[in-house]
Amino acid sequence: MLKIITGGITAPKGFKAAGVKAGLKKSGKLDLAIIYSTVPASTAAVFTTNTMAAAPVIVSRQAVQNGTASAVVVNSGCANACTGPQGLADAQAMAHITAQLLDIEDQEVIVSSTGIIGVNLQMDKIEAGIKQAVAQLDEKGYESATTAIMTTDTFPKSCAYEFELGGVPVRIAGIAKGSGMIHPNMATMLCFITTDAAIAPPVLKQALTEAVNVSFNMISVDGDSSTNDMTSVLANGLAGNALIDSIDCKDYAVLTAALTEVCIYLAKQVVHDGEGATKFLEITVQGAENDVDAKKAVMAIAKSPLVKTAFFGEDANWGRILCAVGYSEAAVDPEKISLAIGDVTIVKHGMGVAFDEKALKDIMAEQDITVTVDLCLGEAKATMWTCDFSYEYVKINGEYHT
Amino acid sequence: MLKIITGGITAPKGFKAAGVKAGLKKSGKLDLAIIYSTVPASTAAVFTTNTMAAAPVIVSRQAVQNGTASAVVVNSGCANACTGPQGLADAQAMAHITAQLLDIEDQEVIVSSTGIIGVNLQMDKIEAGIKQAVAQLDEKGYESATTAIMTTDTFPKSCAYEFELGGVPVRIAGIAKGSGMIHPNMATMLCFITTDAAIAPPVLKQALTEAVNVSFNMISVDGDSSTNDMTSVLANGLAGNALIDSIDCKDYAVLTAALTEVCIYLAKQVVHDGEGATKFLEITVQGAENDVDAKKAVMAIAKSPLVKTAFFGEDANWGRILCAVGYSEAAVDPEKISLAIGDVTIVKHGMGVAFDEKALKDIMAEQDITVTVDLCLGEAKATMWTCDFSYEYVKINGEYHT
Repeated sequence: MLKIITGGITAPKGFKAAGVKAGLKKSGKLDLAIIYSTVPASTAAVFTTNTMAAAPVIVSRQAVQNGTASAVVVNSGCANACTGPQGLADAQAMAHITAQLLDIEDQEVIVSSTGIIGVNLQMDKIEAGIKQAVAQLDEKGYESATTAIMTTDTFPKSCAYEFELGGVPVRIAGIAKGSGMIHPNMATMLCFITTDAAIAPPVLKQALTEAVNVSFNMISVDGDSSTNDMTSVLANGLAGNALIDSIDCKDYAVLTAALTEVCIYLAKQVVHDGEGATKFLEITVQGAENDVDAKKAVMAIAKSPLVKTAFFGEDANWGRILCAVGYSEAAVDPEKISLAIGDVTIVKHGMGVAFDEKALKDIMAEQDITVTVDLCLGEAKATMWTCDFSYEYVKINGEYHT
Repeated sequence: MLKIITGGITAPKGFKAAGVKAGLKKSGKLDLAIIYSTVPASTAAVFTTNTMAAAPVIVSRQAVQNGTASAVVVNSGCANACTGPQGLADAQAMAHITAQLLDIEDQEVIVSSTGIIGVNLQMDKIEAGIKQAVAQLDEKGYESATTAIMTTDTFPKSCAYEFELGGVPVRIAGIAKGSGMIHPNMATMLCFITTDAAIAPPVLKQALTEAVNVSFNMISVDGDSSTNDMTSVLANGLAGNALIDSIDCKDYAVLTAALTEVCIYLAKQVVHDGEGATKFLEITVQGAENDVDAKKAVMAIAKSPLVKTAFFGEDANWGRILCAVGYSEAAVDPEKISLAIGDVTIVKHGMGVAFDEKALKDIMAEQDITVTVDLCLGEAKATMWTCDFSYEYVKINGEYHT
């Protein structure tokens, strides 16, 4: 149903974008982006649950409350987190400067920052950068915007799809940046989605929540959730589909599926680019009594440093996986649980079984590995994506001195 | 009040111990220990909350239920975990063989195992080992017993103290083994305490719970809690103090303090011996609204891989510490929180402050480092001990192949 298309976040009708060099990054790379919808768009966003939420998160939470926005302004190089009242004023100023230049209200601007923590924004550079970016806004500006939000990411993360709603072609696209944290940066998971679908704000919020719950909320690089995490969507309606004004509309499920596809694709890309990652792990817990248990069990596995180092060592250490399930607080019957790595079953009824060692060794040597735990208690299922823990992870996160 | 004494777990009156080579460890090292009280002792124990609890945990849970025991039998080299009905029968047989030889009831024997997961015990070796250990039980046998419970531990962990209860000299002692997990071993935190104090079983249980809550429950090497974790205490009353039969006795507090001292000492030793650890971190969260919040916040910091790698790199990355507090779910006011490393305050009112960089650098270069977070919201406080994440951790846990 979904057709992959080119054009990134400016592929949907009525969107422009630009990424510029504001001089916030010492490297001199692109570090400020604007995404702009030429008409006011329905908007929804989900933010970090971290109580130390950064200033831009506080400002953007207010901005999306009325359900309409026209622009996103993002900088990398400085997180504007733990910056007190000055930080809040700076985040508000970012919105104001952008709004003035685009001739929209301050409340129509979503603000986002990623980078060093505990340092104030250099507002002269921010202001000049915003001016430059607004001047360069372009219907083909997606590439520079995608690059400008990167911090420790080793590759840009972007996708765009076309699908139909009631026979009308609709486009949806997104960009994201990585979740690894690195000193002196406290990097962050950011995702910005654009679509020309027509959808009412509360319905969009519900769709986004559903999509994020099975994508960005189901990845883990190091288990730490940042002060700046944010996923937002702008839906400007220019595709001309019949307005989706209820979750009971038949188009709601179609749009939510497309939105979920965007989020899962980008979430996986973030894991693939996890700091020091050498393996990409797709972990599924099935047969759980209920959804909560499935999620608890899969999260315990995906976050266990012992499991993650074992995969780095290409060691099929099933004891560590079962142990993680055991302390997850999910209902488990130790005499029912089974475990497969790839298509090789290595545990049945809670005990190790004979298996094809050569086949397992080959699977463990792959870069992408699936792990399936079956609790054999019910029908609930959850999937999570994570990466291994490598020397490189310790190096990246330990060797950068103040 | 507490006097450090020699003699380990056989220092309290009426205790004998022995450690022997049963042949369970490929290395040929000591791998089976028995601790024996010549008179029936009050007993209490706390066990892993892991639902994949190993067979010896299931057997010992039943054994301590009536509050009396006379012996502990422990093997290293094989965890008897994920071993199904055969494993349970083997753990019961360990108790039975020990009981027969000591002429006590099966229910008076606490059974414990640590080592490889998913492999059955070699019961012929276990039986021969138990016979040998019983034959060698000695009032000075503490050293071999202390060594026989080790797996990846790099040094034995033992302490013994003397103090007074109502003018009567009383002794308490304990041994422990490490918490790091290593393939093919799934190692475990085990602790066995002996005392000649007279105390009723339910009161002893309460004292042990209090002691464990501020010691073994407050350490973290890698955040994974094993299938075999166990802390037990035998109190045989031979010191002749007035029986402590209520938590309202004034001696209760004195005994609990001594027991807590034993547990904290051994818990810290376990962290010092954490796999690949180069730093020992004592983390305190104070000024929390309540105890639950204090504990949540301190645990989030102590378990964060990002915080742990930063200390490995001797990098005072306060953003990561505040970030961990932020996602801990503890009540936090970002404008009140402060943070000190050693005696150098680096964050006040949620923002970085100027500090003596040379002094901080010196502190970060130490092996033992204290971190103090003040939430400035209340009076509650919690302390946790942990270690850093090093290359060596990844190496130990990733490089052992099946």
